[in-house]
Amino acid sequence: MKLGLDVMGGDFAPKATIDGALLALQEISANDRIVLIGKKELIESELAARNVDAASFDIVDAPEEILMGEKPTKALQHKPNSSIAIGFHLLKEKKIDVFASTGNTGAMMVGAMYSVGPIAGISRPCVLGEVPKEKGGLNILLDIGTNSDCKPEILYQFGILGNIYAKAILQIENPKVGLLNIGEEDEKGNLLCQTTFPLMKASQDFHFVGNVESRDLFGDTADVLVCDGFVGNIILKQVEGMYTILRKRGVNDDFLNRLNYENLGGSPILGVNGGVVIGHGISNDKAIKNMLLLSKKVADSNLVERIKTALLPYTKTI
Amino acid sequence: MKLGLDVMGGDFAPKATIDGALLALQEISANDRIVLIGKKELIESELAARNVDAASFDIVDAPEEILMGEKPTKALQHKPNSSIAIGFHLLKEKKIDVFASTGNTGAMMVGAMYSVGPIAGISRPCVLGEVPKEKGGLNILLDIGTNSDCKPEILYQFGILGNIYAKAILQIENPKVGLLNIGEEDEKGNLLCQTTFPLMKASQDFHFVGNVESRDLFGDTADVLVCDGFVGNIILKQVEGMYTILRKRGVNDDFLNRLNYENLGGSPILGVNGGVVIGHGISNDKAIKNMLLLSKKVADSNLVERIKTALLPYTKTI
Repeated sequence: MKLGLDVMGGDFAPKATIDGALLALQEISANDRIVLIGKKELIESELAARNVDAASFDIVDAPEEILMGEKPTKALQHKPNSSIAIGFHLLKEKKIDVFASTGNTGAMMVGAMYSVGPIAGISRPCVLGEVPKEKGGLNILLDIGTNSDCKPEILYQFGILGNIYAKAILQIENPKVGLLNIGEEDEKGNLLCQTTFPLMKASQDFHFVGNVESRDLFGDTADVLVCDGFVGNIILKQVEGMYTILRKRGVNDDFLNRLNYENLGGSPILGVNGGVVIGHGISNDKAIKNMLLLSKKVADSNLVERIKTALLPYTKTI
Repeated sequence: MKLGLDVMGGDFAPKATIDGALLALQEISANDRIVLIGKKELIESELAARNVDAASFDIVDAPEEILMGEKPTKALQHKPNSSIAIGFHLLKEKKIDVFASTGNTGAMMVGAMYSVGPIAGISRPCVLGEVPKEKGGLNILLDIGTNSDCKPEILYQFGILGNIYAKAILQIENPKVGLLNIGEEDEKGNLLCQTTFPLMKASQDFHFVGNVESRDLFGDTADVLVCDGFVGNIILKQVEGMYTILRKRGVNDDFLNRLNYENLGGSPILGVNGGVVIGHGISNDKAIKNMLLLSKKVADSNLVERIKTALLPYTKTI
């Protein structure tokens, strides 16, 4: 597989991205190639400084750079030679199998929509987050991204996407899909949940286990927790905040440590016509490595094709 | 002050409620009386079993009981002699100054609405939660209750209510009021936040500090965090879940321990014509004690009158 990496993305680029790529190189197979996308001279000098043969990687020159604060759409229009624009161009041309970046998240989302585009039948692509289960393994939370206001049909589709991801990437045979809610009873919640519940309950697309409360975020009641992007983002940032406080206070606990974003490998964008993974802006080399390993899983598992197949029945009705 | 306690409410009633009342008795002043509301014979036998003079308390007989699972409106209609119905009757008649219960939350909410009723100008009463600031003191989160779907004007009122509470109960001179959101920039968030932001920014009622992210829940960016009841409830239950896991795993940290619901004393219902505090169903004696001490603060601070005064300008326009 060809794993495209935006070398320029993130707070510690290009050093952290290059170091992360080197770490990943030791764990991928001989058939895989990491494609470094960024300022070619910079990449080559960083590799030389580490005594690494530049031929260990494919390198694609991207002389421009989209910064963290830039408006996504404008930046992509004005910087066609940026690492993000070129990454998506390569993805669309199938010259890479997956594209990963810790750069401007908005630009990654917009880039995905306007290059490979949404999969037929998908109304709103979403961003998926993984959180550790207390007893081992991972739970999925989606959307954690930009879909702040959702309709029931959108949440239903998140259920489909999360279900396929849990099967393909987490190897869960029959994932339990739950609706994140403020109570377990069928009729609980806001209007969105109340109208989504019957749709999910009647689902033939996934195994719906009902409403799940947020106190079960790390539990085993559901493998896939569906919510709108506002709620998902609020929850994940709250977990991050609590993790940060407790770590800073010196708490050292195996479960708490598993909440470290470095271990989680980033967040795939689901529902677009190509493998896309976004990572935390503050990513260090270990986080970059794990983002690349997750990207490899996304490519190896044929995730995008599996989603396309699952959405086929919906291409005419939604 | 007369502090009314629903002796029958909660998972461990009446033992935990009686024990909690006895603990509170040692910390309140000679001018205060705790009014035990519940099955009189049961209360008297519980007091006798502890060798406590029944005259230490006022006792009001309430021979009926609303159970945790009952539908609030129906239960209150069919059980006019339940401890919750009688508690609200006493509150309306000003025979108690505040009413506290760890019983059926829905019945407490409905009881408040149909007995003392909402304060003039208040569209939707709400439930307030306290969380510890990392550096000491408390932050306020509201709504954490039943207002799952809110309009911008409702969130704005939560800002007013939280502001007065922070002044009256937490003794914060000029509380910082923030809008809980998924980014700090003005235009961030879902439609509700986007439309609430300009209302709050123009506020003459409180000191608005802008959008606050959930990773600052325990921080000092804002003293009062405003959100709809769905989001507030999701966050608090997530914190509770994480707290429970880490404590179970043996993590012992001062900040983490401050998240224990026992210390937090329960959640006031704000915006109704009387002091009302609801507590966690699993409350033990210490939690009951703290709920009573919080109830005393609600009564002593004249919170309800202060809210009425603040809402006066809105009694004709909303």
